[in-house]
Amino acid sequence: MMNVIDIINKKRLGRSLSYDELSFFFNGYLNNEIKDYQMSSLLMAICIRGMSDEEIFALTKIFIESGDVLGFSDISGIKVDKHSTGGIGDKTTLVIGPIVASLGVPVVKMSGRGLGYTGGTIDKLESIPNFRVNLTTEEIIEQVKSIGLVITGQTADLAPMDKVIYALRDVTGTVSSIPLIASSIMSKKIAGGADKILIDIKVGKGALLKTKKDAYKLSQLVIKIGKFYNREVRTIISDMDIPLGHAVGNSLEVIEAMNILCGKETKSNLVELCIQLASEMVSMGKEISIEEATKLVKKSIKNRSAYNKFLEMIKMQGGNISDIKVNKNVKKIRSTKSGVIVDINALEVGKLAINLGTGRMRKEDDIDYGAGIYLEKLVGQKIRKGAVLMKIYSDINIDEKNIENIFTIK
Amino acid sequence: MMNVIDIINKKRLGRSLSYDELSFFFNGYLNNEIKDYQMSSLLMAICIRGMSDEEIFALTKIFIESGDVLGFSDISGIKVDKHSTGGIGDKTTLVIGPIVASLGVPVVKMSGRGLGYTGGTIDKLESIPNFRVNLTTEEIIEQVKSIGLVITGQTADLAPMDKVIYALRDVTGTVSSIPLIASSIMSKKIAGGADKILIDIKVGKGALLKTKKDAYKLSQLVIKIGKFYNREVRTIISDMDIPLGHAVGNSLEVIEAMNILCGKETKSNLVELCIQLASEMVSMGKEISIEEATKLVKKSIKNRSAYNKFLEMIKMQGGNISDIKVNKNVKKIRSTKSGVIVDINALEVGKLAINLGTGRMRKEDDIDYGAGIYLEKLVGQKIRKGAVLMKIYSDINIDEKNIENIFTIK
Repeated sequence: MMNVIDIINKKRLGRSLSYDELSFFFNGYLNNEIKDYQMSSLLMAICIRGMSDEEIFALTKIFIESGDVLGFSDISGIKVDKHSTGGIGDKTTLVIGPIVASLGVPVVKMSGRGLGYTGGTIDKLESIPNFRVNLTTEEIIEQVKSIGLVITGQTADLAPMDKVIYALRDVTGTVSSIPLIASSIMSKKIAGGADKILIDIKVGKGALLKTKKDAYKLSQLVIKIGKFYNREVRTIISDMDIPLGHAVGNSLEVIEAMNILCGKETKSNLVELCIQLASEMVSMGKEISIEEATKLVKKSIKNRSAYNKFLEMIKMQGGNISDIKVNKNVKKIRSTKSGVIVDINALEVGKLAINLGTGRMRKEDDIDYGAGIYLEKLVGQKIRKGAVLMKIYSDINIDEKNIENIFTIK
Repeated sequence: MMNVIDIINKKRLGRSLSYDELSFFFNGYLNNEIKDYQMSSLLMAICIRGMSDEEIFALTKIFIESGDVLGFSDISGIKVDKHSTGGIGDKTTLVIGPIVASLGVPVVKMSGRGLGYTGGTIDKLESIPNFRVNLTTEEIIEQVKSIGLVITGQTADLAPMDKVIYALRDVTGTVSSIPLIASSIMSKKIAGGADKILIDIKVGKGALLKTKKDAYKLSQLVIKIGKFYNREVRTIISDMDIPLGHAVGNSLEVIEAMNILCGKETKSNLVELCIQLASEMVSMGKEISIEEATKLVKKSIKNRSAYNKFLEMIKMQGGNISDIKVNKNVKKIRSTKSGVIVDINALEVGKLAINLGTGRMRKEDDIDYGAGIYLEKLVGQKIRKGAVLMKIYSDINIDEKNIENIFTIK
């Protein structure tokens, strides 16, 4: 007979748990036979003691098997999925989905909502009036067959155990366990039916992972899990000390994504990352070199095929892109000195954005889709005293003290 | 503002928590602002990461301040209290209380009930018909002034926080943290008004602590906490691989204690330990050397003053010692071979005793006060095939398989 306390003690002492022990414990938790306080005790022991590869494979399997597993076998082509561990101003999905699809690689992207300081792709898309994010599996398949691109909310019950475990980790100081992060990401992607997976691992002040060493560890782990499940996994470790691009806030981010897709905006850390991620996905989906893929990606922006694909998707999912709105109350924040911008603190920008109403700190919070921040100047650029540093779109009056810590000008 | 998650994360990373952080967290838990699953997560982090001396002093203080603090200043003499970390067949309190009191050192011993495999002194005393274990503080003071000896249940609400934390530790695999054990013991002893404290640290198969190294760590810690609170603390590290003495079970243990006090029984690991513990207590209480104290202790048994003190206490607390009963169903277990007894597994004896109804696995379980085990032969003794190894007193028929693992004969 397996015993809850014996299993916790084993992990407390740093020993490995078997598939059967992990399954007994995690499924017992889902069935309410094992209590919150026992699960959080085990999770903390896992956080500190770590997990062997075999334990991580087992936990991923348990997460996957807790819900539905989708198969899109009737969609031809290699399905490449992409995941980001979350960052401030990360609207890459809105840019690379259309690019990759316009090059003939089918994209079915099931995205989530934001929680904490990082926004969710689904919230961003909902800033487009009438855009539907709750397509059925049938609608998804139909749309991918028709235009090769869908970005929607989760249809099926993918890895529901991961969901309840994540909610518990969030309130028990057990979020930053690399084995748990890896199982969480990979179980959802595998259950979601991806053939190949690209993972954008953020590292820095505004990210879950604070050090390159941890990012590298996570990278190795997700690749290993991929091998175990016979899925090619590639990773990119990208900086999240400073925000991605100019805009933070739902409709502002959609507009920035469109500006990149139509070639209006060509220079920023965001543009670079989008080209890098899209090239990886195209390379995986078409089985070509990164160099070839990069050329195709740049061409798809230049010849507007990516932008047209974006508009096609918006239209097909019912959205009225011309009606997208930003908040009309705009406050310009001007620089109090001249110099070069050497830092923009991503975490502080994220906190300010949340205060403006761009996201939720709790699930029940309301979102102001038109609120947000637009950084007029980015890191590395010169600024003169009195010039506009950033614009704040919001009904809420923000104390200037919350803004002082964002820019470092030298 | 202090934050629950920040505090957990700090300990998860192995950093020290301040008094204010610990107080915020533990008092928050007592006030139901911090949840079970958050406390168990912190407790597991403490188990694995440990605690600094300052943290342990702080936690002990928080435990003490959560309830009443007793003072017996109107009782003259140095009050020496004794604590055992729990073992199988441990009836030392019943022997040494009378010895120490008979030598003029006042003994106020507040004891607990058993839980798990180890019995509690209060349960043992309750096997004496009409014996009262729920004296009021006034009655305690009156009795100590009159005869110098009281063994009773806890009167006041001593360290109630320790009680709720212990209950949570019990079900979350976080029992075996030496800093938590040390704070738990010392907070109760200090709140109980002891001037000096003797702690009997059990180590071995039948004990909470399995290694001498851990026992030594606990010893150092309780002495340090004592220094911090200006209380002399002495420790004895004693073996718990094999049971203490012959008897396990409530009335059987009271009878064994009486046999030692009246000089009927003079040889066993139990007798040796009782003399050692009593000598330490007398040495502390009278501020004399161990050698002198040991002489006095032996004399108190020889001249029956200790036995008479025991009878005095039983009478004063209403007990009818001549009515004490053992279960009439006695089963003799005989040896299947001849040889020398090289081991008696304490944990297996403890488990068997619980199955006979001597104690509780859950708080609501009933006790058969007359049930138990009497080991006819002890470790080191020779046995012939067919001779009686032990007697089982119980209404319950025990599968012989549960007995096979107890004795090792070579």
